[in-house]
Amino acid sequence: MSRTHRQIVLAELPQGKLAPEHFRLVEAERPSPVDGEVLLRGLYVSLDAANRAWMQGATYRSALKAGDVMAGGALAEVVESKAGGLAPGDLVFADTGWREFATLPGRHLTKLPRSEPLTHLLSVFGVAGLTAYFGLLECGRPKAGETVVVSAAAGAVGSLVGQIAKIKGCRTIGIAGGRAKCAVLTGELGFDAAVDYKAGDTRRALREACPNGIDVYFDNVGGEVLEACLFNMATHGRIACCGAVSQYDAAPPAHGPRGVPGLIVTKRLTLTGFVVMDFYGQREAALADLKSWVESGQLVVREDVIEGLENLPGALIGLLAGENIGKRMVKLS
Amino acid sequence: MSRTHRQIVLAELPQGKLAPEHFRLVEAERPSPVDGEVLLRGLYVSLDAANRAWMQGATYRSALKAGDVMAGGALAEVVESKAGGLAPGDLVFADTGWREFATLPGRHLTKLPRSEPLTHLLSVFGVAGLTAYFGLLECGRPKAGETVVVSAAAGAVGSLVGQIAKIKGCRTIGIAGGRAKCAVLTGELGFDAAVDYKAGDTRRALREACPNGIDVYFDNVGGEVLEACLFNMATHGRIACCGAVSQYDAAPPAHGPRGVPGLIVTKRLTLTGFVVMDFYGQREAALADLKSWVESGQLVVREDVIEGLENLPGALIGLLAGENIGKRMVKLS
Repeated sequence: MSRTHRQIVLAELPQGKLAPEHFRLVEAERPSPVDGEVLLRGLYVSLDAANRAWMQGATYRSALKAGDVMAGGALAEVVESKAGGLAPGDLVFADTGWREFATLPGRHLTKLPRSEPLTHLLSVFGVAGLTAYFGLLECGRPKAGETVVVSAAAGAVGSLVGQIAKIKGCRTIGIAGGRAKCAVLTGELGFDAAVDYKAGDTRRALREACPNGIDVYFDNVGGEVLEACLFNMATHGRIACCGAVSQYDAAPPAHGPRGVPGLIVTKRLTLTGFVVMDFYGQREAALADLKSWVESGQLVVREDVIEGLENLPGALIGLLAGENIGKRMVKLS
Repeated sequence: MSRTHRQIVLAELPQGKLAPEHFRLVEAERPSPVDGEVLLRGLYVSLDAANRAWMQGATYRSALKAGDVMAGGALAEVVESKAGGLAPGDLVFADTGWREFATLPGRHLTKLPRSEPLTHLLSVFGVAGLTAYFGLLECGRPKAGETVVVSAAAGAVGSLVGQIAKIKGCRTIGIAGGRAKCAVLTGELGFDAAVDYKAGDTRRALREACPNGIDVYFDNVGGEVLEACLFNMATHGRIACCGAVSQYDAAPPAHGPRGVPGLIVTKRLTLTGFVVMDFYGQREAALADLKSWVESGQLVVREDVIEGLENLPGALIGLLAGENIGKRMVKLS
């Protein structure tokens, strides 16, 4: 094997919209594991809106700095192990960053069962699937017959949220950008209705799609769409706050949505923020549910796989612009 | 008795700050009860920030219109009864509006036990006390040793929230406007610290007063103070959304606080809006707790009683400007 490998560095922190020139592809010396570490080869890198949020400041992880190898989770294979419990050929999910090889301490890594296709380990059986599952069921707490709305509904998480809500007997409405995505929602993914936020008055479109109000809103986007939902919530409605992709690809937002906290009070809403790691203790039960739904065909899994490490910057920029349907990832080798 | 009585009409809906010219004192024919109704004489009218919110639009009650008798809750005495279960001399709390006499259907009224002083039925044993109790304990869910922050801390609700949190073993910080109020908080009312939001950088002052972050924030005000608290919340913190007095005395707000929903996600916060009526089923147990704390001297009750129906507009305008310490009410007779 070559002594070097390729990696992508965050050359400069974006002040506004993320662009290709914020990244630089570099050849670097391949790392070697020390005692307690494993050498990993990246197979598929996960693209997530949160990647962009990490450039804005500290979140649930420390902020990225200019010059850092770009951070990102990946499905990776152990190539060499100096850590107990892991052997060459084992699969793990780890924050390898955007590079072909990485060394990491073995004690934070969990061996994943191989499954077919492997990509499902990054989508429905990975962070996206668990985020949809726990955010909807633990924070949203939908009851059969209730109306559930999800934004970024054609994305990795949203596409699963709507389908899980349907499995639980809810009426499901997806918000997405453009007619093509909306057609996928109400067609292949079985949503009861779709709202195209690019078509104009989202608040009114939601009022028409949810005449009795929204009981559960799973928020992936924040901003104006969150505001439109706030005004349409039913009394005692619940909002699962998962992310704010509308706010990531810009300077930090000047203001939050109107109606906070006024509408929260008068409608007696509950907003709950969550990060999927908080629920990892309940992971096995969730995965068992997700597996059974995929096997029975109740849960359709959409994936969007791009080839080549050099395409990672474009893949993230495109994801922030809403290009993808389903879980976007980049195949490295 | 005279055939007429005095009442105050909302002459005009305010577009910005509430002012005396929005009200008009009129002499009107005294109402007479029909079957099923009682005739009530108002004793003490409760002044609440929510009175102003009712002029902005529908909340948990329909909006006020120009020409309406100004709405407001009052401690009132039954003068004449054509309703079962109520007799002359009985005390009730009812939305009589700002007038000397009112007729109301008896079936929505609950007879109150007489207690000494009567004014406590509007403060600690009334809506203010129950709002503080349920909002803090049911929505905030503080644990002993946690840090609890309350805004409008010298007000009717806030002054009780801080003291109840202290009874539950929490560290308590009150936010209020001006040094005099802050001195009352840390003196007579036993708060551990006070932050004067008029003194400048509230966000920094809170960071200094709450070095480990805020576990529970009881929000009476919304706006910039809510924003300052959001930035200082501890992970898994809870915000009880009770009201937004900073937003009431103006045109409807253009924007909400920065950090919504970003900080809700990364800090895994829960925001819960509530209206005290939602908890009326648990009312008796709450009143028993409040009574025992008042009797033992653990709960200090501050009241601010103004005399004369004609002073109601000024009393409300002053309350919105933060004049009062403790529960403000107007004694009618």
